Amino acid sequence: MLLKNFGDHIRSLRESRGLSQEKFALKAGIDRTYYASVDNGKRNISRINLGKISCGFGLSLSELLDGVTNG
Amino acid sequence: MLLKNFGDHIRSLRESRGLSQEKFALKAGIDRTYYASVDNGKRNISRINLGKISCGFGLSLSELLDGVTNG
Repeated sequence: MLLKNFGDHIRSLRESRGLSQEKFALKAGIDRTYYASVDNGKRNISRINLGKISCGFGLSLSELLDGVTNG
Repeated sequence: MLLKNFGDHIRSLRESRGLSQEKFALKAGIDRTYYASVDNGKRNISRINLGKISCGFGLSLSELLDGVTNG
């Protein structure tokens, strides 16, 4: 798998599930504008919100970050 | 592997390498007091510093978070 940045990665996951930013944010229990800024690659997300996003996708943290660059 | 919180997890990784908090923080390019607060489970670490820590251990983000609870 090619390494991607985190925003691109979660956008791909979200789109593959046919969810809008708003629907996914609601599912994950995250503020919609906060989620949008992460999805758009504009925010340095926190560990706690990473956990919420991984729960929203039904993935472990490790699964969520599989293939994401550590840079 | 039992799920652990992130602080316990990186402390185990660090201790298994025989590194003090200070030595590891220097290696990872993170402020020592910031690193100590994460290692002690007192801080909600950011994505960018997660990347620095994974680099410091020579692991991918996914490898770093393997077995860490997403709660």
